[in-house]
Amino acid sequence: MTKSLADIVTLLATIPGPDAEAVAAWAQREPQLTKPAGSLGRLEEIVRWLTAWQGRHPPRLDRVRARIFAGNHGVTAQGVSAFPAAVTHQMVLNFQSGGAAINQLCRANDVELSVLALDLDRPTQDFTQAPAMTEAEFAAAFDTGFQSVPADTDLLAIGEMGIGNTSAAAAVALGLFGGQAADWVGRGTGVEGDGLTRKTKAVAAGADLHAGSSPLEVLRRLGGRELAAMAGAVVAARLARIPVMLDGYVCCAAAAALAAARPGALDHCLVAHVSAEPGHRRLLERLDKQPLLDMSMRLGEGSGAVLAVGLVRSGLACHAGMATFAQAGVSGKD
Amino acid sequence: MTKSLADIVTLLATIPGPDAEAVAAWAQREPQLTKPAGSLGRLEEIVRWLTAWQGRHPPRLDRVRARIFAGNHGVTAQGVSAFPAAVTHQMVLNFQSGGAAINQLCRANDVELSVLALDLDRPTQDFTQAPAMTEAEFAAAFDTGFQSVPADTDLLAIGEMGIGNTSAAAAVALGLFGGQAADWVGRGTGVEGDGLTRKTKAVAAGADLHAGSSPLEVLRRLGGRELAAMAGAVVAARLARIPVMLDGYVCCAAAAALAAARPGALDHCLVAHVSAEPGHRRLLERLDKQPLLDMSMRLGEGSGAVLAVGLVRSGLACHAGMATFAQAGVSGKD
Repeated sequence: MTKSLADIVTLLATIPGPDAEAVAAWAQREPQLTKPAGSLGRLEEIVRWLTAWQGRHPPRLDRVRARIFAGNHGVTAQGVSAFPAAVTHQMVLNFQSGGAAINQLCRANDVELSVLALDLDRPTQDFTQAPAMTEAEFAAAFDTGFQSVPADTDLLAIGEMGIGNTSAAAAVALGLFGGQAADWVGRGTGVEGDGLTRKTKAVAAGADLHAGSSPLEVLRRLGGRELAAMAGAVVAARLARIPVMLDGYVCCAAAAALAAARPGALDHCLVAHVSAEPGHRRLLERLDKQPLLDMSMRLGEGSGAVLAVGLVRSGLACHAGMATFAQAGVSGKD
Repeated sequence: MTKSLADIVTLLATIPGPDAEAVAAWAQREPQLTKPAGSLGRLEEIVRWLTAWQGRHPPRLDRVRARIFAGNHGVTAQGVSAFPAAVTHQMVLNFQSGGAAINQLCRANDVELSVLALDLDRPTQDFTQAPAMTEAEFAAAFDTGFQSVPADTDLLAIGEMGIGNTSAAAAVALGLFGGQAADWVGRGTGVEGDGLTRKTKAVAAGADLHAGSSPLEVLRRLGGRELAAMAGAVVAARLARIPVMLDGYVCCAAAAALAAARPGALDHCLVAHVSAEPGHRRLLERLDKQPLLDMSMRLGEGSGAVLAVGLVRSGLACHAGMATFAQAGVSGKD
């Protein structure tokens, strides 16, 4: 059943916290492992996080899933993108036939991939003229994401594809956090010169038109179907105790609406990477999230999220597989 | 046959450069892949590097090997470490029985591991009193590393284990690049308070005693057997067209002696990560190397290098496996 904005706010009030008992089991084992305390740095923190949000120790990574959502955007009429809108559908076909970057990354990191195309033949409204989505459209897109997460998932990576959607992300970020449009607008897939000027103007116009909206209203009015779906997936994962790996700017902008609506709503999420899109770094500062990777990537498709799954696997391999000082007969600190 | 310092200098004069033809083949394919140009950021650069230094396109990652060298250090007599020197041998046994972090990381990233223990029952001389190694000892250790690299290796990750060796690394860095001892000294495995003061004094005393040495002499006088062996492995890899993934502070300090002896000697090396040891970041600036990861790790054992192998595998999977715009029927930039 689709959820109204009020239903989503109600859901957000019920989200569970981390599992203290599982974390205690992690904290009991970790210092016994044959290494100086803390010497695996963020690899250790990743496993603590995985443990806390799966609510079990040791955590598992048997079923790691990626969900990639695709949408089309009315704002492309403003000439904001370097690529034609037809590319969204063409890339969905490329995902389905296994030829995109995300397909290779999922194979390399043992991640199951599903791609959900959201009404590509019905782009959102141009947000410089009207709300991007009606309430019914937003609810349907959110629900598609919400329903896309099997309960037995051990770790969820989410991502997106949608020509024009860095404009939507910038508008959402501007709507949520304020500032100037130029603070949040970047080159996306490679827009330059006049195109970049048009993009900045469109983002500013959209934020002006929809000023004063609540966080979820910002997402409905300035976002897009794939952004709404990602938000739905993040909430569903939280309710099912599934840790989430967030991807780049568009993904984090969608998730940011949840954090703005309910502080702590992204505590079960790690941010895989900071992208080359300059607004992403600014957004992560606002979200108080430290990315795992900084590789100057700016592809979307969940590419950074799935790349970071490899780090999570390595972290868990260490925590679960290492010998203790006692087992190995290794002396502790002097 | 072992190599004198003069032999090594001669060898360094013969090292090959990157393969322009292979890079041209990479550069011809990369922009055809179904993504905005450059949007995979450093993942693309990694594959260009792999191609350039393997000298073939597409590059391969069938045989990825880690070589971990262990040594003991006379400078531990100065009370510079948080752990007793016996831990070096105990950890070698732990590597051999599969219980250490590096064992789990190699398994998770499909890397073959060998551990080479270098005369653990004969620690180097205390470098505050005498050269750490005689010329013969240095040559033998260098040669152990040099001989440890099979010619059919596609990518080599190197690392080390040796109680006291962040003191050796700091002394080598100070000997090569100058500054103050405190610039290069960190907490290593967790030394604090008086121990940290003793460590800084020992590093300063060593650098004073051996001031005015050539880069390879710095490595002989202030380094250790595992540092000499890592340098040998780096040179052997270059001669055999094997790209190298460097690990943390100790590994990079050893490699830095080569760069100081012969500019460009590390062009076939990527630095996997910047560690929590503060001297490492400073050292990478001197080497003009941008680390792939920044995870606050400070374990050594090649742990960062092997973790980064996963990124290399993901990069190659994209370059080798993605569809082109023509194959996928995806439109290019407007």
